[in-house]
Amino acid sequence: MTPKRAAALVIGNELLSGKIAELNVLVLARTLRSIGIALERVLMIPDERALIAREVRELSAAHDVVFTSGGVGPTHDDVTIDAISDAFGVSAEVMPELETQLRAYYRETITEGHLLMARAPAGSRLLANAEHPWPTIVKENVWILPGVPQIFAMKMPIITAELGGAPRFVSLAVFTTLDEGLLKPLLDRVVAAHPAVEVGSYPKWHEPRYKTKLTFDGIDAVAVQRARDSFAASLPQGTQIDIDEE
Amino acid sequence: MTPKRAAALVIGNELLSGKIAELNVLVLARTLRSIGIALERVLMIPDERALIAREVRELSAAHDVVFTSGGVGPTHDDVTIDAISDAFGVSAEVMPELETQLRAYYRETITEGHLLMARAPAGSRLLANAEHPWPTIVKENVWILPGVPQIFAMKMPIITAELGGAPRFVSLAVFTTLDEGLLKPLLDRVVAAHPAVEVGSYPKWHEPRYKTKLTFDGIDAVAVQRARDSFAASLPQGTQIDIDEE
Repeated sequence: MTPKRAAALVIGNELLSGKIAELNVLVLARTLRSIGIALERVLMIPDERALIAREVRELSAAHDVVFTSGGVGPTHDDVTIDAISDAFGVSAEVMPELETQLRAYYRETITEGHLLMARAPAGSRLLANAEHPWPTIVKENVWILPGVPQIFAMKMPIITAELGGAPRFVSLAVFTTLDEGLLKPLLDRVVAAHPAVEVGSYPKWHEPRYKTKLTFDGIDAVAVQRARDSFAASLPQGTQIDIDEE
Repeated sequence: MTPKRAAALVIGNELLSGKIAELNVLVLARTLRSIGIALERVLMIPDERALIAREVRELSAAHDVVFTSGGVGPTHDDVTIDAISDAFGVSAEVMPELETQLRAYYRETITEGHLLMARAPAGSRLLANAEHPWPTIVKENVWILPGVPQIFAMKMPIITAELGGAPRFVSLAVFTTLDEGLLKPLLDRVVAAHPAVEVGSYPKWHEPRYKTKLTFDGIDAVAVQRARDSFAASLPQGTQIDIDEE
């Protein structure tokens, strides 16, 4: 079955303390959206093994697929592998495929610390392709991704290749000089008339050309188009702006 | 009592679909950190009234203070005020102070839609100051903040003024040319010897001057300094880099 409903677990004290800006959720959200998977929940928590284990267990049970970000390096605050092992009641084991790659990379400079990165929850799948030879670890429905944004982004094509194939979302927009207060009755009408279309309304504060951007999203391209057109037709003359964005 | 433990609830379909980048958590995290409040949990969920109500109830019970972001405009997808009212078993009511300000701002162009923004959970406190005359709504221990980043950021001084006064965190750093695999035994030692200090380790991938940044954080400035100095002294000669960052 193609997964439909996803959650993300973002792990790291440095994010909760504001030392580092979280950059991975946006990249993941866009990747999932492009293959028709809805990201329903994102949770950000500290590097605490028992807490991570509990949240992974709950998210894994409630969603088709879960993506974790962070905590997979070799230092004391990297507890994600152990925590996800705990969540599934297995131990963390050295994966020969990972150890071989680490030894090939570090050669005689390899340490016990480096080898910690060869560990994965027992029974994990390792996903790799020619472009990204360092495997991605997947335990049951949980993808264990690194926190470093450059490496996290490199994993997205593997997600698309493995989980893609579901119907794509269609997204259309209308830009208007009216504010949300004035738009409300028009929006209420289009929302009620087109239940299969998700309608979004986004006020812009520092945008001279328009005051509000309306978005129309859904799997059914015809329904999305109809909702957008019917809303656009309901706008008073002269209040719709032709604009290129996205 | 000064609050110590905080959670944030970030609300918005547009964030989970990747249409818009989340920008408020970093701003909130830094504000809270500067006044000694630990942000322990961030949850991002869609604009669904029953779900928001349930999460607010849980977060409010488990943390000293909760900050919500988003869903406070006048359109159909803005359900945060109603949801937080539900969470506390009260109704949403028009606050005369908010209505007066809205009428003064919009004058004869005011609509029912605009006036929806005068609603707040019954029994809310309204916080304002000379610089930020539009009040911030606080229900019990839940601060109801707007999602638009420019306005969200304007609320931070009100948080600092209202909740500040707790002891400040002290944060020190060491930069080294060693990677995490080599650092691991040194880090394990400093972590074990200085339990009151939070030690973080951050590999840099595109930084020619150093490979890893180590951070030392805590309320006790002397303990933080001791941990940092003891770690720095344990580094092999020539592997510590003097650098300005943060």
